[in-house]
Amino acid sequence: MGTSTILPDLGTEIVIPVCAVIGILFSLIQWCLVAKIKLSPEKPFAGGGRHGYAESLIEEEEGVNDHTVVRKCAEIQNAIAEGATSFLFTEYQYVSVFMAVFAVLIFVFLGSIEGFSTSDQQCTYDSSKLCKPALATAIFSTISFLLGGITSVISGYLGMKIATYANARTTLEARKGVGKAFIVAFRSGAVMGFLLAANGLLVLYITINLFKLYYGDDWEGLFEAITGYGLGGSSMALFGRVGGGIYTKAADVGADLVGKVERNIPEDDPRNPAVIADNVGDNVGDIAGMGSDLFGSYAESSCAALVVASISSFGNNHDFTSMMYPLLVSSIGILVCLLTTLFATDFFEIKTVKEIEPALKYQLIISTILMTMGIALVSWVALPPSFTIFNFGIQKEVRNWQLFLCVSVGLWAGLIIGFVTEYFTSNAYSPVQDVADSCRTGAATNVIFGLALGYKSCIIPIFAIAISIYVSFTFAAMYGVAVAALGMLSTIATGLAIDAYGPISDNAGGIAEMAGMSHRIRERTDALDAAGNTTAAIGKGFAIGSAALVSLALFGAFVSRAEIITVDVLTPKVFIGLLVGAMLPYWFSAMTMRSVGSAALKMVEEVRRQFNTIPGLMEGTTKPDYATCVQISTDASIQEMIPPGALVMLTPLIVGIFFGVETLSGLLAGSLISGVQIAISASNTGGAWDNAKKYIEAGASEHARTLGPKGSDPHKAAVIGDTVGDPLKDTSGPSLNILIKLMAVESLVFAPFFATHGGLLFKFF
Amino acid sequence: MGTSTILPDLGTEIVIPVCAVIGILFSLIQWCLVAKIKLSPEKPFAGGGRHGYAESLIEEEEGVNDHTVVRKCAEIQNAIAEGATSFLFTEYQYVSVFMAVFAVLIFVFLGSIEGFSTSDQQCTYDSSKLCKPALATAIFSTISFLLGGITSVISGYLGMKIATYANARTTLEARKGVGKAFIVAFRSGAVMGFLLAANGLLVLYITINLFKLYYGDDWEGLFEAITGYGLGGSSMALFGRVGGGIYTKAADVGADLVGKVERNIPEDDPRNPAVIADNVGDNVGDIAGMGSDLFGSYAESSCAALVVASISSFGNNHDFTSMMYPLLVSSIGILVCLLTTLFATDFFEIKTVKEIEPALKYQLIISTILMTMGIALVSWVALPPSFTIFNFGIQKEVRNWQLFLCVSVGLWAGLIIGFVTEYFTSNAYSPVQDVADSCRTGAATNVIFGLALGYKSCIIPIFAIAISIYVSFTFAAMYGVAVAALGMLSTIATGLAIDAYGPISDNAGGIAEMAGMSHRIRERTDALDAAGNTTAAIGKGFAIGSAALVSLALFGAFVSRAEIITVDVLTPKVFIGLLVGAMLPYWFSAMTMRSVGSAALKMVEEVRRQFNTIPGLMEGTTKPDYATCVQISTDASIQEMIPPGALVMLTPLIVGIFFGVETLSGLLAGSLISGVQIAISASNTGGAWDNAKKYIEAGASEHARTLGPKGSDPHKAAVIGDTVGDPLKDTSGPSLNILIKLMAVESLVFAPFFATHGGLLFKFF
Repeated sequence: MGTSTILPDLGTEIVIPVCAVIGILFSLIQWCLVAKIKLSPEKPFAGGGRHGYAESLIEEEEGVNDHTVVRKCAEIQNAIAEGATSFLFTEYQYVSVFMAVFAVLIFVFLGSIEGFSTSDQQCTYDSSKLCKPALATAIFSTISFLLGGITSVISGYLGMKIATYANARTTLEARKGVGKAFIVAFRSGAVMGFLLAANGLLVLYITINLFKLYYGDDWEGLFEAITGYGLGGSSMALFGRVGGGIYTKAADVGADLVGKVERNIPEDDPRNPAVIADNVGDNVGDIAGMGSDLFGSYAESSCAALVVASISSFGNNHDFTSMMYPLLVSSIGILVCLLTTLFATDFFEIKTVKEIEPALKYQLIISTILMTMGIALVSWVALPPSFTIFNFGIQKEVRNWQLFLCVSVGLWAGLIIGFVTEYFTSNAYSPVQDVADSCRTGAATNVIFGLALGYKSCIIPIFAIAISIYVSFTFAAMYGVAVAALGMLSTIATGLAIDAYGPISDNAGGIAEMAGMSHRIRERTDALDAAGNTTAAIGKGFAIGSAALVSLALFGAFVSRAEIITVDVLTPKVFIGLLVGAMLPYWFSAMTMRSVGSAALKMVEEVRRQFNTIPGLMEGTTKPDYATCVQISTDASIQEMIPPGALVMLTPLIVGIFFGVETLSGLLAGSLISGVQIAISASNTGGAWDNAKKYIEAGASEHARTLGPKGSDPHKAAVIGDTVGDPLKDTSGPSLNILIKLMAVESLVFAPFFATHGGLLFKFF
Repeated sequence: MGTSTILPDLGTEIVIPVCAVIGILFSLIQWCLVAKIKLSPEKPFAGGGRHGYAESLIEEEEGVNDHTVVRKCAEIQNAIAEGATSFLFTEYQYVSVFMAVFAVLIFVFLGSIEGFSTSDQQCTYDSSKLCKPALATAIFSTISFLLGGITSVISGYLGMKIATYANARTTLEARKGVGKAFIVAFRSGAVMGFLLAANGLLVLYITINLFKLYYGDDWEGLFEAITGYGLGGSSMALFGRVGGGIYTKAADVGADLVGKVERNIPEDDPRNPAVIADNVGDNVGDIAGMGSDLFGSYAESSCAALVVASISSFGNNHDFTSMMYPLLVSSIGILVCLLTTLFATDFFEIKTVKEIEPALKYQLIISTILMTMGIALVSWVALPPSFTIFNFGIQKEVRNWQLFLCVSVGLWAGLIIGFVTEYFTSNAYSPVQDVADSCRTGAATNVIFGLALGYKSCIIPIFAIAISIYVSFTFAAMYGVAVAALGMLSTIATGLAIDAYGPISDNAGGIAEMAGMSHRIRERTDALDAAGNTTAAIGKGFAIGSAALVSLALFGAFVSRAEIITVDVLTPKVFIGLLVGAMLPYWFSAMTMRSVGSAALKMVEEVRRQFNTIPGLMEGTTKPDYATCVQISTDASIQEMIPPGALVMLTPLIVGIFFGVETLSGLLAGSLISGVQIAISASNTGGAWDNAKKYIEAGASEHARTLGPKGSDPHKAAVIGDTVGDPLKDTSGPSLNILIKLMAVESLVFAPFFATHGGLLFKFF
């Protein structure tokens, strides 16, 4: 068995932080390029030449010198940014209380395993050695939990800041043409993507190095403590996604129901009192929530891989470079994404609306091809030719090319999921067009066809995930699954960039409408936004696909740590766990969908009240009271995020303590296999409805024009579908992947406690 | 270990057929009572006295002597009965081809295990004995498969005949008051319930006794061959449910979309060309389909219990009475249901609309309480005080009171599921009222709240099922689960009676409308129908709950027969099976929902065409062309039932042959735990939407009146929800329980083949 790697340990110590820093620098450069677009009317924009684009890109300089428009845009941007900041602060206040309580729980539960003893204990896997006491794991887990939470908060917050900085700039650039606007939106997405990926990597790397000062050679203990990082990241992400999701959809649904349906005013019309809340929602839900979510996935898959690796031959031989293989993959990922981004912003130019979707699709393809080479490189230099993985009591010999295949299969499965999602949610293909066509016979057939589309869209992604799992599991057991998840997330910077691009374009369109810009500009931002709906669905596809793999890897790590040898479906404890676990995503979705529904009803009442009581509102002579609507969304989401949050956070604790690790294993497996399906179908159904509506509105084809225009009966039916889809695609669907990940990582962190003290109820039988 | 039972074997030989015959006789008596209501106007109805009810029951003899109305009712009934008969014949023609092909498959696959050898082989569980050859199992499995299929066909066909006989009679009785109409509808339901339950029991009993002539002491072989009966029953049920479901909902959705929404004519208006097809649909889908479905569940749970019991000490000791315990439970069930029925028809009288729902609810409670005593009796007289169950290589000592608890826990779990379903789907409680209230803000919020309601309604039923599984599994392993399923189905006669009552009332309402009867009569049938929606949902709850238990028991029997010791989630083969299995219900639902959608679109076009081209149709001077609509529904459902049918029937074969028994085990478990949730949520969501609409229409409370009347905006929103719910509650939802049962029983039948020749793909790796 070879243990030497081509890359020396010192090289690893240098490569990882350097790649992280490169990512952060690249992000700053993109930021500067975005910042060149001035929002202050005093200094009118001096031309695109300095940006490094050819002047030929500027199709039409419509209203470029209109200072009032620029001032209005700046005002609206400020209102949105203020609303978003104030919401996030309120949200973080509540969540910080929860994080503090949970940190205490972690400390007490993990510390109590050996009665808070401070003396070293026998190691679990090698009883001839001494490992650090459980108390140390308790302390360091608590610290890494808090660190993960804080990094997640920073990720979400920065993402929101960037998005609210970029939205009005995208609007202004849209005056010069769709290509210019696209580049601003995409660059801003890249700022967020690179900052998050690099920041997550750097914090994890520094934490590992600091913890090493104490743990020394006890890698098993070290990486067990590190899992707290994943738990912290995902806990924050849960509240971010659920709170943000309820916020954004309460505002969106509320605004649409009164504005579009009752008052017959366009979307984002400044007369609609809920319009600011709606735009704030895009930033806190789709940007901050999603940022936290993908950061959590990334942190968890790294932790899962590290924990499993720590009990492999890497850990036994203290082979630092091989041990850091997961982080090295992520480091190369940053460089690959950097190169990929240049294809969209510098190597090629977008000139027409039709080029947007292909450009985003090429991003996925280019990053996947480049990353495959990157993974090959890392597998070659950072892994010994062969090594041993320990899994559920069995030793498994793995060769480096096999691990390369594990990572690659995850990466390519991600691409397939992306393409399938695009096929089912883009209005360029027949599925969405069929849904649009079903609007002819009204909203009911639209809803039936949309639901059927979502169900159908599960088939290929599930096969892709299943094949990845089979291949990676067969080659390298749970370590293989963990690195497959990491493979899917290795191009996270690009994924986040194209994902964040969507809500930024959506906001840009809103600002154009509110600032009273011309119809043509709104058309351009709408085209950007339609592509954004598809990319948002693709992003959600990645999030759920990687969540499935991550959860399985975490589940495997949990099972190892809880010292379970088999999880046998044929035992009643496991089976009832499976059954109840499969029900949890339904329970959770019921809560979140109802929350959106009731919050939207409150919003509707307020918007109606304002239309009825504020004179001159419909005529546009008086300004509506935006602040009350913002407050309703804030209150509703803070209040309503607690029950679903509690369900997810408490279930593993209750099941572990009262029913024990076998039932908990079943529960995790059940919620994983059931949640994945609902999440995929919910997000694709919602995306398809949204784009079916946009398809009718845009009227780009002969077929689409027979269904339109805006206000026709088919269009009204399409709006109903879109509204139903809102909570599905932006609240319950994307929260589900956090549900499955979080329950798994939480079980992993508490595994030693459950194994020692769990299963109280069955002990009495 | 005691092997003697209080009930001698001869007693068992007498009790079972006697109970079955009593059931059939009771069913005939009910039939005669229904038949007393004459549909021929030549002999006007001579008064209610002869029926044995007090004359005081007759509230108002409205139009009793109007001969034209009676003649019209008879005409409409004939049209419905003809349509239903012709559809069922077409359906059975297609399905019989499939059954023939599948019978050949069973024979070839099972026969090939030992190369069609005719010599006896070593028994699997006791190698010192000789068992019958695989060829015999192949032949007898094929025979019992065909018998099961034929019994299922007869069950569905007779059910349809009874329902189409009773519907117009219910309408005529509704002229005399709601109580009279209720009794006719309920009696007709009872005819079907008792006939099916008794028939199923009798055929199974006779088959066992005939097979015994060949098998003699080889009980293991005998009961393995008997499982074909379950497979045959369920295969027919699948096509019945899917075909019937598509038929009924294509017609229903199509009729509503043009009639109610576009033309603004009431439901069941004779001017609507699709109205006859709609009423035919109720009979072929909700009656024939459901009859086949519950018969399949009953056959399968009996088979599962018998197979598991055959390898227990009962089988080893040739203890006939104990072996027949499952059939004895069903026999007592018939007597219990008989007594229960008298409470609704003879002991108490329904006088007002408000008494209908409680009366049906009492049926559930009374039958459950009586049955608990019945089970205690059977467990006492038919079981030895203690006996041994063999399960996955482990022996388990079981006492008779433990088995009593297993059956009872299933029975009571059924009651709980029934009550929860009632709570979530009856418009007497807040969930449906909330959904109705959400119609204020339009169809979108209605759909959101309805979906959330369905998701939420899974929680308690899943816990009830989980507890039943845990208790029964812990006491008596898979045998316990099988008898728990049987416990839930032991009151099947009552369950079917209250379930069939719904579509009969629905049809009665349709006939009243078409025959031009007064508004008051329509109100009475509507009240019956609203209660029927709830009972239909309860029936579906029972079907899915019992399907979950049956599938698990079949799964257990499959695992035993395929000689698998553990089904470990932590192996890739099992896990990918779980994941893909959990996806199958989505794939299946996508197919069936789309089928309903496209068939409905065709129906809409035809109905529109007739309204536009047939002069005088809207004025009611010309008759529409009902036959074309019937034909569209027939063609669509025959054509569309094949792909979902193929998915369900081929998946276990493909997975078993190419991926082997481990992956197949995972697949079965995955589809079970995921399918249960979708089935429950789909049927409750649909039921709730339907009753939310009825709640607004009936305007029975202050709150309901603020939402109505018919034609108001909230009512229109409610109609959209109802239409979306149609395929959910009557096509995809109820078909899913067949999906999970059928895949399990099919795997069980083919288990020896898969164990010998399966897993081709993995053999090459």
